[in-house]
Amino acid sequence: MDRVYKKLELVGVSDKSFEDAIRNAIEKATKTVHGLAWFEVTEQHGKIMDGKVTEFQAVVKVAFKVD
Amino acid sequence: MDRVYKKLELVGVSDKSFEDAIRNAIEKATKTVHGLAWFEVTEQHGKIMDGKVTEFQAVVKVAFKVD
Amino acid sequence: MDRVYKKLELVGVSDKSFEDAIRNAIEKATKTVHGLAWFEVTEQHGKIMDGKVTEFQAVVKVAFKVD
Amino acid sequence: MDRVYKKLELVGVSDKSFEDAIRNAIEKATKTVHGLAWFEVTEQHGKIMDGKVTEFQAVVKVAFKVD
Amino acid sequence: MDRVYKKLELVGVSDKSFEDAIRNAIEKATKTVHGLAWFEVTEQHGKIMDGKVTEFQAVVKVAFKVD
Amino acid sequence: MDRVYKKLELVGVSDKSFEDAIRNAIEKATKTVHGLAWFEVTEQHGKIMDGKVTEFQAVVKVAFKVD
Amino acid sequence: MDRVYKKLELVGVSDKSFEDAIRNAIEKATKTVHGLAWFEVTEQHGKIMDGKVTEFQAVVKVAFKVD
Amino acid sequence: MDRVYKKLELVGVSDKSFEDAIRNAIEKATKTVHGLAWFEVTEQHGKIMDGKVTEFQAVVKVAFKVD
Amino acid sequence: MDRVYKKLELVGVSDKSFEDAIRNAIEKATKTVHGLAWFEVTEQHGKIMDGKVTEFQAVVKVAFKVD
Amino acid sequence: MDRVYKKLELVGVSDKSFEDAIRNAIEKATKTVHGLAWFEVTEQHGKIMDGKVTEFQAVVKVAFKVD
Amino acid sequence: MDRVYKKLELVGVSDKSFEDAIRNAIEKATKTVHGLAWFEVTEQHGKIMDGKVTEFQAVVKVAFKVD
Amino acid sequence: MDRVYKKLELVGVSDKSFEDAIRNAIEKATKTVHGLAWFEVTEQHGKIMDGKVTEFQAVVKVAFKVD
Repeated sequence: MDRVYKKLELVGVSDKSFEDAIRNAIEKATKTVHGLAWFEVTEQHGKIMDGKVTEFQAVVKVAFKVD
Repeated sequence: MDRVYKKLELVGVSDKSFEDAIRNAIEKATKTVHGLAWFEVTEQHGKIMDGKVTEFQAVVKVAFKVD
Repeated sequence: MDRVYKKLELVGVSDKSFEDAIRNAIEKATKTVHGLAWFEVTEQHGKIMDGKVTEFQAVVKVAFKVD
Repeated sequence: MDRVYKKLELVGVSDKSFEDAIRNAIEKATKTVHGLAWFEVTEQHGKIMDGKVTEFQAVVKVAFKVD
Repeated sequence: MDRVYKKLELVGVSDKSFEDAIRNAIEKATKTVHGLAWFEVTEQHGKIMDGKVTEFQAVVKVAFKVD
Repeated sequence: MDRVYKKLELVGVSDKSFEDAIRNAIEKATKTVHGLAWFEVTEQHGKIMDGKVTEFQAVVKVAFKVD
Repeated sequence: MDRVYKKLELVGVSDKSFEDAIRNAIEKATKTVHGLAWFEVTEQHGKIMDGKVTEFQAVVKVAFKVD
Repeated sequence: MDRVYKKLELVGVSDKSFEDAIRNAIEKATKTVHGLAWFEVTEQHGKIMDGKVTEFQAVVKVAFKVD
Repeated sequence: MDRVYKKLELVGVSDKSFEDAIRNAIEKATKTVHGLAWFEVTEQHGKIMDGKVTEFQAVVKVAFKVD
Repeated sequence: MDRVYKKLELVGVSDKSFEDAIRNAIEKATKTVHGLAWFEVTEQHGKIMDGKVTEFQAVVKVAFKVD
Repeated sequence: MDRVYKKLELVGVSDKSFEDAIRNAIEKATKTVHGLAWFEVTEQHGKIMDGKVTEFQAVVKVAFKVD
Repeated sequence: MDRVYKKLELVGVSDKSFEDAIRNAIEKATKTVHGLAWFEVTEQHGKIMDGKVTEFQAVVKVAFKVD
């Protein structure tokens, strides 16, 4: 039953939406760690250029089981 | 003019998106209470399986007028 | 000695003052639950119309002993 | 349906009470902006001189509709 | 997959320990609701009399699945 | 290199989605200030009528370079 | 110009109002320390008995100049 | 009915457990002040040496009635 | 005695230090408003390039008396 | 004198107690990093099944000296 | 191993810098208590006159070992 | 346009100043990761010995682009 998870704090960036930014962060995480179990969105911000949102940035904590 | 609202703290879960998770929470609330007036999203997290988001979870406070 | 309290989150509204808004919330609570023991004010806001405060709104948590 | 509000952060000061301090802040706001819709009290502090409260200071955010 | 949970905010009181206070809160909750799924401890405080801790008080949110 | 930004706190309202509410706030800001550089979403709430979400409200801080 | 203040954290209790509770805390402080300069209200709660507010409790930090 | 409490912020340290650390803080407080009424645990941390927890540190606010 | 202050939220940027970034924000504010009375530093962050801090960024609220 | 520590955010899980969950997190950390110096408990929650606590989950930050 | 620390909340004021304000607070503390062990900076603000920073104010908690 | 950053939480220690502590943390980070882009200071504390500040400790989050 006893086990331990580790959380990583990532910032996903997308030019489409916050949910896409979140998915980018999670996808990148899956390339380096195994056993991703959950994620938490802690901040949402972005970049504006010429009056348009050019970047959606989501701060995301992802947790994975430590072997 | 004087009136009182009660807040309920719910967690909506969806496999599609956060906004769908929020709508699930509100829809469920409408089945048990009348007079829902507003909602507040306080947390956004979710579940990951095999590197994919399988659940979007939104913590949502909903408020309704107490008769 | 062992016992359990439950907290309810209410929003009292008054056209007179915050303390009246708080009392409205507590009074309403006394009509549905017994054994109210304490309250906590967590937010204070209100509505303005034509430059006048027309509503004082107090977010109030009330706690009562669960039988 | 779509519209936008702007919030201003003010500090009202009164020698009488916090609610008077809040009203001072709102009254001043009505002189420069139209369409005030709501307010939020975020902090309450004050000044003491010779052991007496000489100033009640309320930090108040006021919101108005942007045309 | 879609489902909704409701959170209740309880305060468990014990004269033995915080973990006992938490268990009191959960046990009481199981008597009125079904499907308890998780809990969150948000505050820990207590009462002192004659220099001894006479009450451990744990503020606990419990969540259960809404049918 | 030295420069200064100013932040405005806005509340965007939309009947479609939070991301639309955020865009409304930013669009309105572009009409009065130049040089918008970034935005931060700090709160997400909304209005419910007859069990349906009728308004998505996003509190958004936008920052622009001060000349 | 250089000087140092010390803050004390007090809880004033009154059966009348929060502002009376605040004044009680400040009055008590003036009996033991000199040079009180400001106060900050950080929490507002109270006690309920038989459905009536019997105590208003204000957590108040008071600051005074250290000689 | 009117009365005033003062809070002290202490850090109890123990090599056994957090609850022991809390008790150390309260015990020490009883040696210098009378009328301790309640305590609040605000932080829990500790020291590790050679991979073992050698200190449990609990930040504890204790409140006592001011005569 | 009664008066009202308005707070502006600025972000000062400097390539030298945080205190320089704060001064930049205040200096800029003095060019557009009169009667600046106090400031509050709420966040400190910055930019790194090639392993060197190239920007110190201080989020600063400045308050001035409203006539 | 100059040195740098790195913090890891872990979630220890135990079926016995929070302090056991904390120890699990620290023990796991000692297997991959050297020089663990302190830990901070930031959240305490858990899982309930059939009305019983089946998991104690402690979010723990551990810090170790970077060589 | 078991021991207890007490924290004092001070506000150091300097016309030079925040670090000088912090040092003023600590220096003053050393005149009344022994065994100061650590400090924590919790707020940074200041006074402005004629567009210049005339006071740097640092809120500092200092901790000392209780005998 | 799409990309992901990772944040590390470090504690820089210096016997000179907070800004030196921050620089120590960033310098150490540059030795193990490439592409550092920004940093955030989240806490400032330190050690006192014989009434003198012997250590400035800055909790710093640094972010770098993940390849």
